Amino acid sequence: MHTTVGIIGGGPAGLLLARLLHTAGIDSVVLESRDRRYVEQRQRAGILEQATVDALRACGAGARLDAEGMVHDGIELRFDRRAHRVDFPSLADGRRVTVYAQTEVVKDLIALQLAEGGPLLFEAEVHAVEGADTDRPSIHYTHEGEEQTLTCDYVVGCDGFHGVARNAVPEHLRTTYERVYPYSWLGILADAPPAADELIYAHSDRGFALASMRSPSVSRLYLQVPNGTDPAEWSDDRIWDELDARFALDADPGWRLKRGPITSKSVLPMRSHVTEPMAYGQVLLAGDAAHIVPPTGAKGLNLAAADVIVLARALTHWHATGATDLLESYSDTCLRRVWRAEHFSYFMTTTLHTAPDQSPFETRLQISQLDRVATSHHAAAELAENYTGLPLPTGPTG
Amino acid sequence: MHTTVGIIGGGPAGLLLARLLHTAGIDSVVLESRDRRYVEQRQRAGILEQATVDALRACGAGARLDAEGMVHDGIELRFDRRAHRVDFPSLADGRRVTVYAQTEVVKDLIALQLAEGGPLLFEAEVHAVEGADTDRPSIHYTHEGEEQTLTCDYVVGCDGFHGVARNAVPEHLRTTYERVYPYSWLGILADAPPAADELIYAHSDRGFALASMRSPSVSRLYLQVPNGTDPAEWSDDRIWDELDARFALDADPGWRLKRGPITSKSVLPMRSHVTEPMAYGQVLLAGDAAHIVPPTGAKGLNLAAADVIVLARALTHWHATGATDLLESYSDTCLRRVWRAEHFSYFMTTTLHTAPDQSPFETRLQISQLDRVATSHHAAAELAENYTGLPLPTGPTG
Repeated sequence: MHTTVGIIGGGPAGLLLARLLHTAGIDSVVLESRDRRYVEQRQRAGILEQATVDALRACGAGARLDAEGMVHDGIELRFDRRAHRVDFPSLADGRRVTVYAQTEVVKDLIALQLAEGGPLLFEAEVHAVEGADTDRPSIHYTHEGEEQTLTCDYVVGCDGFHGVARNAVPEHLRTTYERVYPYSWLGILADAPPAADELIYAHSDRGFALASMRSPSVSRLYLQVPNGTDPAEWSDDRIWDELDARFALDADPGWRLKRGPITSKSVLPMRSHVTEPMAYGQVLLAGDAAHIVPPTGAKGLNLAAADVIVLARALTHWHATGATDLLESYSDTCLRRVWRAEHFSYFMTTTLHTAPDQSPFETRLQISQLDRVATSHHAAAELAENYTGLPLPTGPTG
Repeated sequence: MHTTVGIIGGGPAGLLLARLLHTAGIDSVVLESRDRRYVEQRQRAGILEQATVDALRACGAGARLDAEGMVHDGIELRFDRRAHRVDFPSLADGRRVTVYAQTEVVKDLIALQLAEGGPLLFEAEVHAVEGADTDRPSIHYTHEGEEQTLTCDYVVGCDGFHGVARNAVPEHLRTTYERVYPYSWLGILADAPPAADELIYAHSDRGFALASMRSPSVSRLYLQVPNGTDPAEWSDDRIWDELDARFALDADPGWRLKRGPITSKSVLPMRSHVTEPMAYGQVLLAGDAAHIVPPTGAKGLNLAAADVIVLARALTHWHATGATDLLESYSDTCLRRVWRAEHFSYFMTTTLHTAPDQSPFETRLQISQLDRVATSHHAAAELAENYTGLPLPTGPTG
C-alpha cells in the first residue's frame, strides 16, 4: 500500500493532521496501535486555545465543540489563602480558551475520518520506520495478524512519548532535553457540578490543587501527590477533604467544593521532554512524539495541534508547488514555540507546586511571584498571553 | 548620652536615614564600626533607582550626583550570541536609572553629615542593643577605648548582614529565609572606558558576565566564577579574554571590550537572605541588616534606601504627632517590597547564570525566557519595571 502521508498515531495530533490534509485534498493513512474504544476513553487535557478551536472548525469538527464547549474568560489563582482572578480578554487582546475534553475532540475526529476520510486503522502496531532519508520512506506494522508495509512520500510520527517514530531520527543526530518533576497529580472525575465557572489553580502549604471540569455536571479535580502514590491510598472522603483544605480562603471560610460520586482516580507523572530536531529526511514528528510538558498550563494538546497546523500548511504548500522549503523549516519553526510552551509549563508548575525539598525561601518567592501576577498588569498579561496561546506563525513563509 | 534615633551602621542606609531625619528636624547619632576611609572605599553597587536619587537630592546630597551621575535609559542583554536592548522609559512609564557608585554616595553623605548633621562616630563598635521592648532602648558600644551607652527613643539597625542589631529581635520571634548560590562573581575595576554606553548582561555557555562602569574612564566588570575562587588564579589577560568570550556576538565577531590596567580584583559571594520581622519593640532594621539580594539586578542599595525612606516618614509622623501607627506597620510595609526585590534578584540571577549542575533542559529554558523578553512587550516591561524600581508606598498611610 502507498499513501502520500503516512501518519503513525491516532490521537488528537494524528487525527487532526489527517483531517487538515483531507480538507486540502491530500491522501493519508492513519495507523493507531490501540482499539477505538481505548483511544476514545483516554483521559487527557481539556483546555483548547483559540487556534486549536479554529483548526478543529476548519476541518469540519466544530459542530459539537461549538454546542458543548464552554468558553472561559479567565482562571482563578488561589495562594496565601486569597483568591485572584486573571481576566484573559482584557489582558490578552480578547483571547479566550474553550473547555472541551480531549476525549470528545478525539471522538469527533474519529467519526469524521471514518465517515469521509482516508484509512484509519485501529490495532495497527508499527514496528519500524525505514528509509527516512529516501524519497520513499516506509512504515512496517502488524494489522489483523498480518505484517504490512505502507510506503509514503512523507511519514509523520504522532505516536506519543513511547512511540517508535522518533527512532527514525538517527541517534547521533538527536538531542534530548528532559526533566522529571518530584511530584505527580492524583486526578479524579466526579459526577458533581464544578465549584466555580472557571478553573481554580491553588498554591497552598499542603501542595498544589486544580479544580477543572468536563461539563456543567462533571468535575475534573487534581491534587499534587508524591511520586509513586497508589490511588488506592486515597479514599473519596480523604480526596474531598484534602481538596477543600488546599482551596481554603480566609475571606470565605465556608467555601467548599460540591461533592459527588468519584468515577475515576488515577495518578499522572509530570515530565518535561524535548527531542530535537523534529524532522529527519522525509520523517516528521509532531506532538508528544517530540515534546512533553507537565499539564500545569494546559499546553500539551495545544502544542500538538500547533505542530500539525504548521505541518499541514507545509505539506499543502509542497503538494501544490513541489517546494519543500516549509517542510525543511518545519522543525525550527515549531521548536521556538515548543520551547516557549516548555518554559511556560515549567513556570506554572514550579510556581504552584511545593517540591519535597523546597526551602521556606523558595515558598516565599512563589508567593511573591503570584502576588506580582495579582498586582501587575504586565505580569498578569504575560501569564494570560501564554495561557491563551501565542499566535501561530502565519502564511507560507512558515 | 541620649538621642532620639540611634543609628547603628554608617553605610548608605544609616547615613541616608540620618540625613532624612536631620532634614525633618529629628536628632540622631550614627555609630559606624569601621574608619572613614574604609567606609568610603568599600566597593559595592552603582545603579540608583529614581526613588533613591530623589531621596539623596531631598536630603541635600544631589549636587555631585547630578553633575557626575550617568543617566541610563536601558540595558543590553546578550544571550545565544545575540544582543537585545531593553529600553526602560518606553517600557516603564519614563523611568530611568542613574549610574553613580555607592562609594560616591557614601562620601557625599558623610561630608554632609559631618558638616551639618548630628554626631557620626567612626570606629564605634556596637556590642549589644538592650531594652528593645522598653521605651528607652540603649546601644552599648566602644569608642576611643571607652565603653559607652547611648539611650534612644528608637534604635535603627543599618549594620548589615554581619551586624548585631538583628539580635535585638528575640530568636524565637525571628524567621530567617536564605539561599546561597553555587557561584560567585569575580569583579574588577579597570582604567578603561566602558565598552558601551549602557550595562551589558551576558548569558553564555561559559557562564554569566556583566559589563558595568563607574565613570566614562573606569569600567566595572564581572565574571561568574566557581565559589571559592582565588582572584590570584585569574591573570589580567585571562580575565579580559574570558570577558570577551562571554560577550561574543555572532553578528559582530570583532566586538571587544576596551582593555586597560586592572586596579582591583575581588570575589563576591552570592546570597539571598531575609529576616522577618524587620522590627521588634523600639528597634527597627533596615537594608542588609534585614535582607540581602544577589547583585544581579542591582537591588541591594535601592532596597536599603527604600527601607529608610519609609522609616524616615514613619519617624517623622511619630515625631510630629506622637502616633506610632506607621512605625508599627513599617515591617509589613517594607517586607512586601523586599520579597518583590528578592524574587526579581533571584529571577535575574538564575536566568543569567549557569549552575554547576545545570541540565541542558534548564539552559534552554533560560534562553527561551531571554528570547521572550526580547520579543514580548509584557515580558520586557516586567523586567524594566522591576529593574528601574517599583513605586514606594506613598503618603502617611504607609
